[in-house]
Amino acid sequence: MSGYDFGTGNTNPEGFPADELAAAAARIIPQVSDQLNQYPGKLGYEPMRQMMVDREAEREGVRLLDPDRLILTNGSMQAITLVAEALCTGTDDVVVMEEHCYVGTISAYRALGIEMAGIPLDAYGMRMDALADTLARLHDEGRPPRFIYTLPTYQNPTGFMMPKERRLELLALAEQYQLIVVEDNCYADVHFEGEKPPALYTLDDSDRQVYMCSLSKIFAPGVRLGYLYARGALFDRFLDRRQDAGPNTLAAAITTEYLSTDLWGHIERANVALKAKRDAMLEALEVGVGNTCSWSHPVGGLFIWVRLPDNVDLGRLAELCEARGVTYAPGSNFYVKGTDVPYIRLAFGYPSVEQIRAGVPVLGQCIRDACGA
Amino acid sequence: MSGYDFGTGNTNPEGFPADELAAAAARIIPQVSDQLNQYPGKLGYEPMRQMMVDREAEREGVRLLDPDRLILTNGSMQAITLVAEALCTGTDDVVVMEEHCYVGTISAYRALGIEMAGIPLDAYGMRMDALADTLARLHDEGRPPRFIYTLPTYQNPTGFMMPKERRLELLALAEQYQLIVVEDNCYADVHFEGEKPPALYTLDDSDRQVYMCSLSKIFAPGVRLGYLYARGALFDRFLDRRQDAGPNTLAAAITTEYLSTDLWGHIERANVALKAKRDAMLEALEVGVGNTCSWSHPVGGLFIWVRLPDNVDLGRLAELCEARGVTYAPGSNFYVKGTDVPYIRLAFGYPSVEQIRAGVPVLGQCIRDACGA
Repeated sequence: MSGYDFGTGNTNPEGFPADELAAAAARIIPQVSDQLNQYPGKLGYEPMRQMMVDREAEREGVRLLDPDRLILTNGSMQAITLVAEALCTGTDDVVVMEEHCYVGTISAYRALGIEMAGIPLDAYGMRMDALADTLARLHDEGRPPRFIYTLPTYQNPTGFMMPKERRLELLALAEQYQLIVVEDNCYADVHFEGEKPPALYTLDDSDRQVYMCSLSKIFAPGVRLGYLYARGALFDRFLDRRQDAGPNTLAAAITTEYLSTDLWGHIERANVALKAKRDAMLEALEVGVGNTCSWSHPVGGLFIWVRLPDNVDLGRLAELCEARGVTYAPGSNFYVKGTDVPYIRLAFGYPSVEQIRAGVPVLGQCIRDACGA
Repeated sequence: MSGYDFGTGNTNPEGFPADELAAAAARIIPQVSDQLNQYPGKLGYEPMRQMMVDREAEREGVRLLDPDRLILTNGSMQAITLVAEALCTGTDDVVVMEEHCYVGTISAYRALGIEMAGIPLDAYGMRMDALADTLARLHDEGRPPRFIYTLPTYQNPTGFMMPKERRLELLALAEQYQLIVVEDNCYADVHFEGEKPPALYTLDDSDRQVYMCSLSKIFAPGVRLGYLYARGALFDRFLDRRQDAGPNTLAAAITTEYLSTDLWGHIERANVALKAKRDAMLEALEVGVGNTCSWSHPVGGLFIWVRLPDNVDLGRLAELCEARGVTYAPGSNFYVKGTDVPYIRLAFGYPSVEQIRAGVPVLGQCIRDACGA
């Protein structure tokens, strides 16, 4: 990697257990030879479904989840698309979501022609007053949203965490309007400190909860493994909509074999390294841009959301950063309206601590140079 | 495997190179560590795209295909769905296709609400007189089809092969109505004898040709690797519609590493074994059902299409076969209308030669028992 790549949400390449994964592959492939010669089915490799059920029970306290009610997907992006396709009709589809949101979700919804009703955030995630207003307005207009999509934990791009009380408020509003809630919990493993509020799925036993998660953040995006679960008839709608002959047996078997030796140990090691990077970036921001910007202080996830000065010239900032080898993700990427906003997202998972320490001051100089006359 | 499984289109599990694949995985994983930590992008693992471009040039004579114009997909099923989603509007979508067709395609189109206009087949594939009539009718009704979908080579379920002259007729009709042609060539590697007619893609340089292929038949469905290519703006429409953050790097890297040592040798060995199974099934049919049924004699692919006697009781046949451990795929699965037809599809790739020799006579007895009073 040349320059300072704070743009992509890739995981930490340092300390990736390549040799252990290679050994796991060499062990498991001869054992799954027959399964590789068969179509995987719509649910996917059973040992990985069982492992994910167990970890969801342990991490989130999801009770009595049946591995036959969990769908392995081609990354959580396939889950995002599958759920939207299953729940939308193709005409006048509205989805309510955080107004600053994961670019993959925005891009998928845009491709499906979905109208995105964005809800503003504060430091605790989606604002409930704004959500209540939007739901009332859509109700009055006779255009109930197909579902509420939310990233309540280490929200992307902001890193914000929704506290339990607000989660309960969100669920009460969903109950009031009988709306499906789609919870994207794909950063849940990347946790640095403090208590984590419970997942929405564990706070509501109704059949209107959908849960999705990913192995891209804590393991590797190149294995394209995510999953999805829901209760009752909703689950069957997703299964019916799946038409790709199933998820990847080879990648699932190798990853399961590796993680089965040490799932939580792997996650702990990954988080120690990621926390050091987060700390390095927070420190570097304090020194490098402390007098010009403000930013989020995430307790998990991979991203810091930086508020730029009002007088920044975004085009000039992009030019300066490109010339000096600094990559960031512009806030407009994550905005449901797609227009310019005075924010950038910095990702700390992929660059080294040294690159963070050297690159953030360069970014700070670019920001100052892009401000004012 | 217990009983006689002639139902599934799985590949040949015997002689699957599990140890060689395990060795390839152990070699390549440490080399692609950095790529595994990144999102694959919409096209996918470059060395596999280059390998597929080279093999399409060698096998089909596809000229000057750029690896950046080939999309790796999650099996060819994702290509089937992606193309349909990109080319359909969601309202009044009609697709013209063989009336007996791959069940995965039928299922995907049904889920998308597509009206399937089925064209009858003879022993040379889709009938051109019927195609001309249907295209004229749809044109007159002001409902031009979104595209023509066809399996011209070792058609599934029939095993029929469309000769070159008929391919040119099909392309002329598509030209006349300016229609997109989607060619599913996923059985092309499974070739036993004789000359193969050229792929439609090589017979028409227009920007209306779409080509899809798979590694499921010649290698393993569990690796979920297929691909798609097209020219001009059509290619970009498929790329734009893809919203899953890309195909599986791990599976692609391991498969490429294995095949790079001996792609054509692997295919040749696989075909020798599959041809022996086809021969065994044709011989067993002659002896076991020769006086009651007729069937296709495919020169490639994995399937034989069996015409049952007119007086067969399909429900009774299903019961008898289930009781005696014989599995087949009922013709209705492959019929665009979904209703009963006096056909069954027998797949010869997965069972052993011994199982074929023992099972087909049992099937023959079931057919006789299910006929007449």
